[in-house]
Amino acid sequence: MDEFELIRKYWMPLGREGAPGIQAGIGDDCAVLRVPPGEELVQSIDTLVEGVHFLPSIAPADLGWRALAVNLSDLAAAGARPLCFSLAISLPNTNAKWLDGFVRGMAELAQRFDLPLVGGDTTRGPLSITIMVQGLVPAGTAMTRGRARAGDGIYVSGTLGDAGAALDWLEAPQDHPDIRFLLERYHRPEPRVALGQLLRGGATACIDISDGLVADLGHILAASGAGADLIHSALPLSDALKQQAGDESATLALSAGDDYELCFTWPDGEPLPETLEARAGCTVTRIGTIRHEKGLRVDGRLWASGGYDHFRESS
Amino acid sequence: MDEFELIRKYWMPLGREGAPGIQAGIGDDCAVLRVPPGEELVQSIDTLVEGVHFLPSIAPADLGWRALAVNLSDLAAAGARPLCFSLAISLPNTNAKWLDGFVRGMAELAQRFDLPLVGGDTTRGPLSITIMVQGLVPAGTAMTRGRARAGDGIYVSGTLGDAGAALDWLEAPQDHPDIRFLLERYHRPEPRVALGQLLRGGATACIDISDGLVADLGHILAASGAGADLIHSALPLSDALKQQAGDESATLALSAGDDYELCFTWPDGEPLPETLEARAGCTVTRIGTIRHEKGLRVDGRLWASGGYDHFRESS
Repeated sequence: MDEFELIRKYWMPLGREGAPGIQAGIGDDCAVLRVPPGEELVQSIDTLVEGVHFLPSIAPADLGWRALAVNLSDLAAAGARPLCFSLAISLPNTNAKWLDGFVRGMAELAQRFDLPLVGGDTTRGPLSITIMVQGLVPAGTAMTRGRARAGDGIYVSGTLGDAGAALDWLEAPQDHPDIRFLLERYHRPEPRVALGQLLRGGATACIDISDGLVADLGHILAASGAGADLIHSALPLSDALKQQAGDESATLALSAGDDYELCFTWPDGEPLPETLEARAGCTVTRIGTIRHEKGLRVDGRLWASGGYDHFRESS
Repeated sequence: MDEFELIRKYWMPLGREGAPGIQAGIGDDCAVLRVPPGEELVQSIDTLVEGVHFLPSIAPADLGWRALAVNLSDLAAAGARPLCFSLAISLPNTNAKWLDGFVRGMAELAQRFDLPLVGGDTTRGPLSITIMVQGLVPAGTAMTRGRARAGDGIYVSGTLGDAGAALDWLEAPQDHPDIRFLLERYHRPEPRVALGQLLRGGATACIDISDGLVADLGHILAASGAGADLIHSALPLSDALKQQAGDESATLALSAGDDYELCFTWPDGEPLPETLEARAGCTVTRIGTIRHEKGLRVDGRLWASGGYDHFRESS
């Protein structure tokens, strides 16, 4: 199978002729995008490398979903409406069964957001997937990390720590509802695209949790020049996590990555948008408050860098 | 060196605060681009993998230049004005000397077009470089492969076959002016960005020559539903190529890739833009004519697929 057959068989079906804003898409040398007046284009690019970001044993459909999801999560954190994506993939060989699965998983998520593939590159090489997703926001409204202010509430979507707990079962999944749930959370993260758009204009800062709450909230604090107090007992934990990880649950919720929930700050005293959770399709939980004083505190204790062990010892 | 140090030391200097149209660039989660009213965004993404697209022995500065150049060449073929680029790179390690060279070569070309880096991703993995370049055109004017018509003249920029001839010396360069010239043509292709913009609105089809004239002109013919007659003796050949490759020169010019010159079609009888060569900074040579009848002919002989040997036998 040569590059052109690959494009025709696997990538063209991910495109969509006549998609709004896409003047030229997959199959042309360049993609041509039209940005409506008064809007800006928001984009993010991410690479997943086999053996670094995923195990060789991952199901191709899960990989296809996950590769697109982690990129859409960046758009969600900016509050953007997804427009299209581009895919640069290096493949060690052209295994039709693998490609079928990969495209199926990717298409499942892309269709949910009506997201056409508009361009890409297929090369031979060690398995590696680079995706750029692009979306739109009204000019000047893209959310960033940098405007959290003392007193703002700190919120997260969904539950935390699930994907981190799943790491224990990646290579030896067990047929237990809790473990299936945790593995699903790792393999099929839900980018909080609807929530991001609802927060735009109200949230003072927003980030998606890819490296763990402490690390990613840390980016908000660094960019905003602020500190934070978190309340340990307020961290939203799934029942499956509590059942399977027990006392480790809160530590996972603070430190483990891969959940792709949103963490955002919202001015204290201002109401969140009405029926936010229903419209976003996920829970939203207040877990703490932004402070003037630098540093991240959990139940009043300073969280040191390398905080994982520190926290376990002192709690 | 962690990802954040890498970003600060190597990638941030490739960004440019306050670049026009870039509302948020490198250092933010997402880049935010503003497209002026009446313009469209043109973009292309390409991956270079070590051992597939370049040898491990390539000088890092040449690799930095080349990775950006091959992408800019796609924008040139669309007639776009370069706006910005994103870089997703997988590195097996963080070798400061290698990174210094890579960034220096890339910056040299980027500065020529005032092209800021606006985003990216740095991961650990086998050496692989994915770049997306983005540019602007007045709405509806991006050049494509698909509108060549019978009677149009076929033109190419610069000289052909030089980069193909260089392959013989990649691993054992010699200190001879011809060979230095050919190697420079391979390592430092000049994306024909100025030429592309001058052709927009006049050329009926345009493509950059990455896989060889026959292959890339073939894409124009397929997309336009046409054939072509080429004149063997009209192919523009450098003196260095003729000296070093002798009788092989024209075959290289027809079949070898990596030159990144533009091939375009222009209505017969309509004048090319005045002082085109001077303003584009390269020669432009007519090498043939588009025909109704399908197929590519060289001096009247049909060029078969797998044409390299066929041509040598029959000429």
